[in-house]
Amino acid sequence: MLSKSQISFIKSLHQKKYRKENGLFLVEGLKSIKEFLQSTYQIQTIFYTGEQFSLLPKLPANINLFEVTNAELDKISALQAPQNFLAVIHIPETVPADLKYFKNQFTLVLDGIQDPGNLGTIIRTADWFGFKNIICSEDCVEAYNPKTVQATMGSLARVNIYYENLPKLLANSNILVFGALLDGNSIYKTNWGNEGLIILGNEGKGITPEVIAKINQPVTIPRFGDAESLNVAVSAAIFCSEIARAKN
Amino acid sequence: MLSKSQISFIKSLHQKKYRKENGLFLVEGLKSIKEFLQSTYQIQTIFYTGEQFSLLPKLPANINLFEVTNAELDKISALQAPQNFLAVIHIPETVPADLKYFKNQFTLVLDGIQDPGNLGTIIRTADWFGFKNIICSEDCVEAYNPKTVQATMGSLARVNIYYENLPKLLANSNILVFGALLDGNSIYKTNWGNEGLIILGNEGKGITPEVIAKINQPVTIPRFGDAESLNVAVSAAIFCSEIARAKN
Repeated sequence: MLSKSQISFIKSLHQKKYRKENGLFLVEGLKSIKEFLQSTYQIQTIFYTGEQFSLLPKLPANINLFEVTNAELDKISALQAPQNFLAVIHIPETVPADLKYFKNQFTLVLDGIQDPGNLGTIIRTADWFGFKNIICSEDCVEAYNPKTVQATMGSLARVNIYYENLPKLLANSNILVFGALLDGNSIYKTNWGNEGLIILGNEGKGITPEVIAKINQPVTIPRFGDAESLNVAVSAAIFCSEIARAKN
Repeated sequence: MLSKSQISFIKSLHQKKYRKENGLFLVEGLKSIKEFLQSTYQIQTIFYTGEQFSLLPKLPANINLFEVTNAELDKISALQAPQNFLAVIHIPETVPADLKYFKNQFTLVLDGIQDPGNLGTIIRTADWFGFKNIICSEDCVEAYNPKTVQATMGSLARVNIYYENLPKLLANSNILVFGALLDGNSIYKTNWGNEGLIILGNEGKGITPEVIAKINQPVTIPRFGDAESLNVAVSAAIFCSEIARAKN
């Protein structure tokens, strides 16, 4: 049985402040937890509802296992429909993004993304298309937000996420900087080459002026209808797909 | 001032049951409401917070205007951060989808989409790429769900949404039926022609077997990394973009 203080500790990890303080975050659902088991992330504890025990794979000895009731899982879960398994995982140490390691590949750079579901969907899409790294501005939503983690469907275990001061970082870039803007060249006629940074902006305000100033290659997804804009996760997906298509 | 019964009536429209019973739904935010003003939708009432009155455009005489306080708007809004304006709009009469009117164009067909945000994002994306119609299976989430309406960012005013029994509808199709499947031909090598239905399936279960049986052209978005699947709104966007690109 979980104690009151255990419950309130795990629930505190729904909030950024306490995730940061404790260096821990939550992953829910067996499928996603399995992805983290196969990664370099360190799992601290897995909570499971009793009847699901047999579904667990063999675990390293340093992972705590804790049986809970459905009612207890309801209390600690950040989901509306909890999924029988909840893991407490260590947030990895922050490593600065060094652009010299981003050669010969494409990297998404997100400027001020606010919606946790959008960030999660972008991470999942990047993983599908084989992008290994995503650089976020410091004011982007946190990758360890439960809604982000959920939307990545386990892909967070495979894609490296960096948080950086973008104008500073881009000042020293010798990699081509593509940016999603409304008045760029058609994405369907873009020559991608074999490496680049792809900048996508905030849901409402787009890319900040300081970051726009660093873009060498403004790129636009042509509009054929009347919507004023595209969802940023949709834009990111179309960029990833176009780059994949060009290499194909 | 709003009466208790007004408040509870408008709040009831957050729920599908009462939207259906009353033939009314909610649109929030001035930008979106303006899109509906320019459409064939009939607006019944617009609620606005007093200080925002001057932002309202000239309105037809048959639309009721009602000033509310911020506290009242908080009560009737379905949003976490209400946006000063809330409109009650008539749900248009259901018209059956007749495939003979879907020639010389591409139409998205959604089989069992459950997430309201996904449906809304798909409607917005379709509008960007100039798709005029979307056909949903009868078990898809409702297009007038507040989360769907919100995610369309006004595009719901321009894209026609139909709800149909898909196996029955597709039995009589003489339009090519493309479908997003994991074992189809590469989307990057697809010959689209100039018309088609594009079938996308449920978030977890994909397309139902009865509908798969009607697909003539299975199409796959090639995977270059490790994610197990793509978000359905992302898949839909990549299909729309590829079709737009081919016509470009």
